[in-house]
Amino acid sequence: MGKMNQVVRARSRRDELIRALIDRQIGFHQLPRDLPADEAAEIRRAALEGLTGASLAKTGSYALDAKRAACRNCENFIGATQIPLGIVGPVAVRGEAIDDEVFVPLATSEAALVASTNRGCSAIRKAGGAVVRVEDVGMTRAPVFRTAGIDETRRFIAWIEDHEEELREVTQGTSEYLKLLDIRPYTFGTTIFLRFRFTSGDAMGMNMATIACDRVVREFIEPQTGIECVALSGNYCVDKKPAAINFHEGRGKRVFAEILLPPDVLEKTLKTHAEGLLEVQYRKNLMGSIASGSAGFNAHFANVLAAFFIATGQDLAHVVEGSMGVTCVEAREGGSVYMSIYLPAVPMGAVGGGTALDTQNEALALMGIEVDPERPGHAVLRLTEILGATVLAGELSLLSAFTSNDLARAHERLGRGTLPPGGPLAR
Amino acid sequence: MGKMNQVVRARSRRDELIRALIDRQIGFHQLPRDLPADEAAEIRRAALEGLTGASLAKTGSYALDAKRAACRNCENFIGATQIPLGIVGPVAVRGEAIDDEVFVPLATSEAALVASTNRGCSAIRKAGGAVVRVEDVGMTRAPVFRTAGIDETRRFIAWIEDHEEELREVTQGTSEYLKLLDIRPYTFGTTIFLRFRFTSGDAMGMNMATIACDRVVREFIEPQTGIECVALSGNYCVDKKPAAINFHEGRGKRVFAEILLPPDVLEKTLKTHAEGLLEVQYRKNLMGSIASGSAGFNAHFANVLAAFFIATGQDLAHVVEGSMGVTCVEAREGGSVYMSIYLPAVPMGAVGGGTALDTQNEALALMGIEVDPERPGHAVLRLTEILGATVLAGELSLLSAFTSNDLARAHERLGRGTLPPGGPLAR
Amino acid sequence: MGKMNQVVRARSRRDELIRALIDRQIGFHQLPRDLPADEAAEIRRAALEGLTGASLAKTGSYALDAKRAACRNCENFIGATQIPLGIVGPVAVRGEAIDDEVFVPLATSEAALVASTNRGCSAIRKAGGAVVRVEDVGMTRAPVFRTAGIDETRRFIAWIEDHEEELREVTQGTSEYLKLLDIRPYTFGTTIFLRFRFTSGDAMGMNMATIACDRVVREFIEPQTGIECVALSGNYCVDKKPAAINFHEGRGKRVFAEILLPPDVLEKTLKTHAEGLLEVQYRKNLMGSIASGSAGFNAHFANVLAAFFIATGQDLAHVVEGSMGVTCVEAREGGSVYMSIYLPAVPMGAVGGGTALDTQNEALALMGIEVDPERPGHAVLRLTEILGATVLAGELSLLSAFTSNDLARAHERLGRGTLPPGGPLAR
Amino acid sequence: MGKMNQVVRARSRRDELIRALIDRQIGFHQLPRDLPADEAAEIRRAALEGLTGASLAKTGSYALDAKRAACRNCENFIGATQIPLGIVGPVAVRGEAIDDEVFVPLATSEAALVASTNRGCSAIRKAGGAVVRVEDVGMTRAPVFRTAGIDETRRFIAWIEDHEEELREVTQGTSEYLKLLDIRPYTFGTTIFLRFRFTSGDAMGMNMATIACDRVVREFIEPQTGIECVALSGNYCVDKKPAAINFHEGRGKRVFAEILLPPDVLEKTLKTHAEGLLEVQYRKNLMGSIASGSAGFNAHFANVLAAFFIATGQDLAHVVEGSMGVTCVEAREGGSVYMSIYLPAVPMGAVGGGTALDTQNEALALMGIEVDPERPGHAVLRLTEILGATVLAGELSLLSAFTSNDLARAHERLGRGTLPPGGPLAR
Repeated sequence: MGKMNQVVRARSRRDELIRALIDRQIGFHQLPRDLPADEAAEIRRAALEGLTGASLAKTGSYALDAKRAACRNCENFIGATQIPLGIVGPVAVRGEAIDDEVFVPLATSEAALVASTNRGCSAIRKAGGAVVRVEDVGMTRAPVFRTAGIDETRRFIAWIEDHEEELREVTQGTSEYLKLLDIRPYTFGTTIFLRFRFTSGDAMGMNMATIACDRVVREFIEPQTGIECVALSGNYCVDKKPAAINFHEGRGKRVFAEILLPPDVLEKTLKTHAEGLLEVQYRKNLMGSIASGSAGFNAHFANVLAAFFIATGQDLAHVVEGSMGVTCVEAREGGSVYMSIYLPAVPMGAVGGGTALDTQNEALALMGIEVDPERPGHAVLRLTEILGATVLAGELSLLSAFTSNDLARAHERLGRGTLPPGGPLAR
Repeated sequence: MGKMNQVVRARSRRDELIRALIDRQIGFHQLPRDLPADEAAEIRRAALEGLTGASLAKTGSYALDAKRAACRNCENFIGATQIPLGIVGPVAVRGEAIDDEVFVPLATSEAALVASTNRGCSAIRKAGGAVVRVEDVGMTRAPVFRTAGIDETRRFIAWIEDHEEELREVTQGTSEYLKLLDIRPYTFGTTIFLRFRFTSGDAMGMNMATIACDRVVREFIEPQTGIECVALSGNYCVDKKPAAINFHEGRGKRVFAEILLPPDVLEKTLKTHAEGLLEVQYRKNLMGSIASGSAGFNAHFANVLAAFFIATGQDLAHVVEGSMGVTCVEAREGGSVYMSIYLPAVPMGAVGGGTALDTQNEALALMGIEVDPERPGHAVLRLTEILGATVLAGELSLLSAFTSNDLARAHERLGRGTLPPGGPLAR
Repeated sequence: MGKMNQVVRARSRRDELIRALIDRQIGFHQLPRDLPADEAAEIRRAALEGLTGASLAKTGSYALDAKRAACRNCENFIGATQIPLGIVGPVAVRGEAIDDEVFVPLATSEAALVASTNRGCSAIRKAGGAVVRVEDVGMTRAPVFRTAGIDETRRFIAWIEDHEEELREVTQGTSEYLKLLDIRPYTFGTTIFLRFRFTSGDAMGMNMATIACDRVVREFIEPQTGIECVALSGNYCVDKKPAAINFHEGRGKRVFAEILLPPDVLEKTLKTHAEGLLEVQYRKNLMGSIASGSAGFNAHFANVLAAFFIATGQDLAHVVEGSMGVTCVEAREGGSVYMSIYLPAVPMGAVGGGTALDTQNEALALMGIEVDPERPGHAVLRLTEILGATVLAGELSLLSAFTSNDLARAHERLGRGTLPPGGPLAR
Repeated sequence: MGKMNQVVRARSRRDELIRALIDRQIGFHQLPRDLPADEAAEIRRAALEGLTGASLAKTGSYALDAKRAACRNCENFIGATQIPLGIVGPVAVRGEAIDDEVFVPLATSEAALVASTNRGCSAIRKAGGAVVRVEDVGMTRAPVFRTAGIDETRRFIAWIEDHEEELREVTQGTSEYLKLLDIRPYTFGTTIFLRFRFTSGDAMGMNMATIACDRVVREFIEPQTGIECVALSGNYCVDKKPAAINFHEGRGKRVFAEILLPPDVLEKTLKTHAEGLLEVQYRKNLMGSIASGSAGFNAHFANVLAAFFIATGQDLAHVVEGSMGVTCVEAREGGSVYMSIYLPAVPMGAVGGGTALDTQNEALALMGIEVDPERPGHAVLRLTEILGATVLAGELSLLSAFTSNDLARAHERLGRGTLPPGGPLAR
């Protein structure tokens, strides 16, 4: 008996479970809880392969810690999706948490994005670095309540105002990193929204805010007022949707970055000139976005943001509101160009969520992101300042590309693989 | 001589290149072109490790084809970001390209998303399957032109209308899969946008559309009219920004899905009831989105869409417009609930972009997505129908969760890892 | 007997009715139908004066045809509101229906508006006239229908497409001036909107469109399809609300106007200069409207439009969508400035509605607006071209005023009455 | 000599001036300043009649005080536009400044509007009166400034925060009725907006706010900071444009009104029923406005608001933002219906602007609006509460009309004059 038997028994249990999954006797979430995450993943993959005939070999060839991923990030874990990672930079960031040059990893499958952003980083470097400022607006969550009408609404809002201290105490009691900034009510008809706004240290804070709101609503507001909360998130938060309130009030981090590009950088690095950039800015970023009724007055914030978000373990659905914003381009004396970007609502974390995943963690470490318990919020500030400079790099490079008519050609060359990495765009 | 020498020489060359990178004598895109992608990636990683002290071991432990990724997807390739992949379903899709049950892979780091969507799939299955319809609106690209004013603008637009056939010929000549549907002009002041709309077979089509527009603009419109194109993309396309025009006209695929949920599915699978769902829909998805000035009248399309997009190799920045849309919930007789989702502008491809990456390709194969040259557009139609059913699953599960007040608790339990996979949400 | 008796009897009947109104035995709409409109109005005023102690003497001193007003424009007629009317111009209009100078009446109570617009007219005159073009987009009405879901919706839309000819016949049968341009369906969930678009000769067309839709819905669509129309206007029309669809598709008339202002006109007439105008345009009309989430990228289209609408008997609630739009300001060689305005959705009529009221009719005649049955639509085209030039005049004058910092002072001087008409702004 | 001679001389002077105007030797604003307003108007009319052949007899038959109108409201005064005035009500208002029934004058040329609103007033009266609450959000004005970039912007905003007391003192020093509530900065790129928010007693406050901002900008902010103000109004105010910021923050008055309609009022007065109203609300006011990308989730706030604004001398261009808002309709037990309206941004005055015009002043007096110096703001509060109830009346009547399919027919009957006032709609 012994080892061999154990192996046989394990294999036989494994085969039984695969069979049970294939026969749909159990669901993919019903594997025994004592099964190690790796084995559970393998069993699920085997069942799926059996069910569909497809191979999941690469999906199973992951390098991440399955136990952590399966417990904290992704139920019914079967493996990992792998997205190519490229490096740009260094980009020179003149921020408050970082005043340095830094290499930035971007994960993407869109040809030319890394090359183009890299060129933007060169331009920024040569122009002396991007000035970046980040405001910690705070993460929001807005439970929605139902009242009987105007009078009850007024009493409820007055009660909320009168109990700000207790509401602060209860919400902040759910996490040592949570600070309640304010509660903004909005109401019409029989509906009341209470938009709670919190800072959350280095975490993105959405879950912390949700948990705090759950606590205060269930244990304090509802019992004390008798007013029912219909949903913990009332879409006045508002999470993962483009919305005027976030453009206006901000959410997460509010990001400002700017650069003054001298003529030689425009000409040699960006193959462009002031007049061309101003024209593209005017017709595309301003008139085009006005014409299309867009909330994004920029060329492609979303591209760089998405690649940065994937690489660093952010919540990818946050690209929606994170990519709203405005690019400005202005002529300066002697053929120089001032360029700035503004992103009002970037949810961002340096801990929690996907940041602890293995490859994402490496990406954060590469940029020197280290959470310091003594300075909560400092790591995420540094990370967001790097983001700001990188988005600016991507924006100025693409706008320049339009002026030299090479957008389509870059895609053609790079996307179709006729050029090795390091083509003409990547200067 | 021989092998040993070669190895030594290679190692020495490798070390030199790493040193050159670290010393910034060359940039990361300036490695010799004959270097295999894997080696180039390794050299870049070694240099970055040297420069920063960070480890990139996991980043280098990738399972994808480096050569393809480096050539077609990501310049300055250094490895891969790995995102946990979970499985949901099967979801029952009653579409035109698929009328079947299918397992759906979702890549995410957001705890509870897979479990919750899985529960939605169960509900859909028990309720007889989601009816899904997808319209191929087509991919758009809108170059922007400058004119001298009203009169020239009118002449230009008349010229465009008069030359529709030639414009079709030239654009369609750039790809056998491209069909020009129409050209919509929009103009004010001295600016003209021409919004070209194409179908593009199974490809998402953005690059194909860009290349076609480049050709027709540079070789036909500009030379023939003398009117200058300021930028190939004039933000009236509009790509990767939330915008009214895409909500209104559609872009990519327009997705409709619906389900009738009988009372027992509401109660047993979703732990909810008609009244509660209607109330959450009313206060959150309608009133809340009105209050916040949002273009998303839904609970969390973006979450499921992003996870599906990552898993299947879509362009992740497309989550921005892809996730716009409207959920409807209506009471039906006997305590049943009708629920529908509508996504007006989902860019989606079954070939091209990130779909050929190894793990992404496996995900597509798992869902039976196979491009058939005889039926261009059929594979992507199938894929989008599956997406529709999955987004519906995610939506109905989350809305149900609000009615039973367990959103925060699910996040608390699943996100903090106190529960093994397969918790109570995952029924 | 005879006259005296009649007078006594009439007076006694009058007193009885006043008493009945005061005592609330009858409502204000329940006066005898044979009572002449003037007398009914007098009786109502007397009752209101008795009820409230307020005088309505001026309200009763009207110069309009009470019978017509009471029958066609305003139930429970009691008199008229009088709004000061000023004259501006002549403004030089280089349009298709008018190429001439014309004096324009504006009704307003906002001090400085007439003076400022008058200055703008001078500038336009001196600059050679405003080029104006108007497109007759057509008036829209969108009934909303309820279906059982996706399949029924598709069948319904296919039916509509198949019966376009009959739908045209039925709708056009309700008025000789109505031409159906197209029917645009929009749908999600169980809701279908059919946006009918009509030209309507010289009439604004809203009522004609409503009547036509009523006929075709009640007599053709509902009986033939069995699909119920929930409301004749489904807010996808959309009337008297700011909306992306009208910005995008247009509604009523789409108005373009432009002018090239040479340096001497800028300096002498407008007390400004190119640089100042460009700066105000950039910070206010573009950046400010982006910051505020506005659909109006202009300084004050609404002011001039409202004054023009009142003077000419338009529907004043149409100021809402009529005033959406974009101003462009661009530098030209030698210190000249190009300025244009764009209003995508101006509902406008030269007959019907309030245009037949006495003072309004005089205002139309003053501008040479005469409806010619041989050229339906020509009069309203002329009227709208004049509107375009006048809005441009108001816009360029106000933008100029900002650059010389005199907005507040103009209001202070003119609005507080310390200056006689014809002050410094009015050059 | 004597009288006769004077008359002759006056006539001759009059004829000379008319001739000078016709010959364009002088402009319409260049009449001698000592000319009484009535005579100046007559001379202008005579010249216009001579120039165009049109008659302006009715325009000249005005009942308003020409001197006041010409000095304070309208330069180049030539007479008045007369708009039919009807009476509705009484409407029962349960507000804070009025708890009473009141007759409401509405000026309009849109057939059926008065009759329909009157029906709504009946319904409100029978249902016990509309609960109305008005918040005095305050009037806003946002000067726009230019800075050199991020650092200067930060210093400027800090300076503003540090000098709030001085800013309050200077602005409030321009009017005894002005109270500065707060200053909200918004910034990106090199642009800063400072949104000043003031209460202004019974005045609408736009001019007071402008004058106060002018003073503080020119005499305090610019000299002290050296930062240039580009325009006193930076479109972040934002005046007379539909905008998210006003929907979100409010501007002028924020208006809430509600009513509970019992079944018999629904049936007998409104000819409708709960189910029908809910359906119209859902498909039209919610789904329709979502589909059209509208900021107005209501049926026709703008109609009633415009008619009320004209009658009471408000600034008519304020209909644009004043009419934004949301209608709610909810089922209550026993077939009752709860209905509410919400208007976030209604600029409204009881003094100033057009309120002092003769007929407008009578309309205000009719509703018991009297400015009491002891209670500044009370009169405008009362006026706005009456507005709220009247808009609610108009809304519920029109929604009801949709359910009985009689919108088009009402327009047909009433607008075409085939029925005397007091038709079936007017019950």
